[in-house]
Amino acid sequence: MLLSPVMTPEELNRFLDRDFPELNATRRVYVVTAVGPGWSSVRCEAGPEHLRPGGTVSGPTIMTLADITAWVTILAHIGPAALTVTTHLSIDFLRKPEPGHLHGKGRLLKLGKRLAVASVDIDGEDEDQPFAFASATYSIPPR
Amino acid sequence: MLLSPVMTPEELNRFLDRDFPELNATRRVYVVTAVGPGWSSVRCEAGPEHLRPGGTVSGPTIMTLADITAWVTILAHIGPAALTVTTHLSIDFLRKPEPGHLHGKGRLLKLGKRLAVASVDIDGEDEDQPFAFASATYSIPPR
Amino acid sequence: MLLSPVMTPEELNRFLDRDFPELNATRRVYVVTAVGPGWSSVRCEAGPEHLRPGGTVSGPTIMTLADITAWVTILAHIGPAALTVTTHLSIDFLRKPEPGHLHGKGRLLKLGKRLAVASVDIDGEDEDQPFAFASATYSIPPR
Amino acid sequence: MLLSPVMTPEELNRFLDRDFPELNATRRVYVVTAVGPGWSSVRCEAGPEHLRPGGTVSGPTIMTLADITAWVTILAHIGPAALTVTTHLSIDFLRKPEPGHLHGKGRLLKLGKRLAVASVDIDGEDEDQPFAFASATYSIPPR
Repeated sequence: MLLSPVMTPEELNRFLDRDFPELNATRRVYVVTAVGPGWSSVRCEAGPEHLRPGGTVSGPTIMTLADITAWVTILAHIGPAALTVTTHLSIDFLRKPEPGHLHGKGRLLKLGKRLAVASVDIDGEDEDQPFAFASATYSIPPR
Repeated sequence: MLLSPVMTPEELNRFLDRDFPELNATRRVYVVTAVGPGWSSVRCEAGPEHLRPGGTVSGPTIMTLADITAWVTILAHIGPAALTVTTHLSIDFLRKPEPGHLHGKGRLLKLGKRLAVASVDIDGEDEDQPFAFASATYSIPPR
Repeated sequence: MLLSPVMTPEELNRFLDRDFPELNATRRVYVVTAVGPGWSSVRCEAGPEHLRPGGTVSGPTIMTLADITAWVTILAHIGPAALTVTTHLSIDFLRKPEPGHLHGKGRLLKLGKRLAVASVDIDGEDEDQPFAFASATYSIPPR
Repeated sequence: MLLSPVMTPEELNRFLDRDFPELNATRRVYVVTAVGPGWSSVRCEAGPEHLRPGGTVSGPTIMTLADITAWVTILAHIGPAALTVTTHLSIDFLRKPEPGHLHGKGRLLKLGKRLAVASVDIDGEDEDQPFAFASATYSIPPR
């Protein structure tokens, strides 16, 4: 699978801002930091509203990061197709996240005409072992 | 499987408020409305912060409702075990939700000593066909 | 969702025989027993080759029954589209199956132009509680 | 996660033969070929009974390879705990497999006291892009 990204992190961030304004409504939380052939990275700077009592990041915040990272990984390779929608997401919560930024690392598994699939590792600052692991499928609109 | 709920909707709502204060932080969004043998219902009153441009409820809001509904379905049958944590969640997004309240309807599939599993239909006001369908697994702490 | 089956169990069994000859190669194992609006039932008559030591049905046999049941549930409503292929299958193994026939009960969750989704309960002779629970997605070829 | 395998491929193959005699009943189909820190590889030599008309490997054969590979990846690191059972398996079928041997490559995502999680790439002879991708959860018996 010869894959070349067709969007830069800057273009993807502008696209997220325009298409998903609710994500970074009050301040910047989800930021595309890097893209490469078949992969992308998204950082989540969780704020108090994303934390559970005790200081760990909430499950919904991790699911949102997984979905955004997989979606960004696909859009980075097909261009700004806003109508690309999640049809399935499966996530394993592996261990309680430590306080600090989370990093989604997406891997493109399939890029078809109608369906695309990506997996996502959710890592902490130290990428030793993931806090969560997800895979997600997206329906690509006819072009 | 002879199942009898051991918590009322009122007790579950109080437990959610205490244990997940971030869920209904600014106003009441997620409300347990009914429990029965092997099932529970949770209503989501989405506000502007949960909507995508165009007025449909966002994916993360639907995933959160699925997780809460499955969790509530289990706690309703085992009692207030706050350390019961999601280990896996799988969700199919079936069709774009229409504006209006969403309703999670949970079904208990397994209630073991260490693991519990529930499925969830995410319906609109009219329960004709679900907008989304999820299943989730929870690890129950040793008692 | 007004759904009416367009194939009978007999037609579906003939279609399985022709399209999946390896399933019932040596003797009849998987049999469509009933279809209705939005659902279908498939019986699995496990033989020695499907059993684990101890007499319980093997995991692969249960996964095969889940896949066939979901696929049959969809084909029963769209007609004999042999190129309808599984794109995703998620299964929870809930409890060890007891010896005896297994029954897959499929429920149609979505019937779109390009994608269809069904869930499946895997029950024993007594339908009290499922042994396994699955959901699966299928890509429907353009018509 | 400092991980060291505690079983060799030879020990794992003997264990499979003894514990899952139905897998390689008539001839050797599933063979553990390598293990390393946090991973293992299993080869599937599909025979005529595993092929669909047209010569591609059947879905159930691929699901079985995914389950065995994830299970072997875990046992390689905890030792021969035969009662370690699959509780969940999620699989994406990405593209039609070409004729030839299939290779499952397992990656350990979590090794807890009670639960272990692994992901699996299902590759062909050339590992360029996977045919299928799975993740699976196992319940480990108390020791």
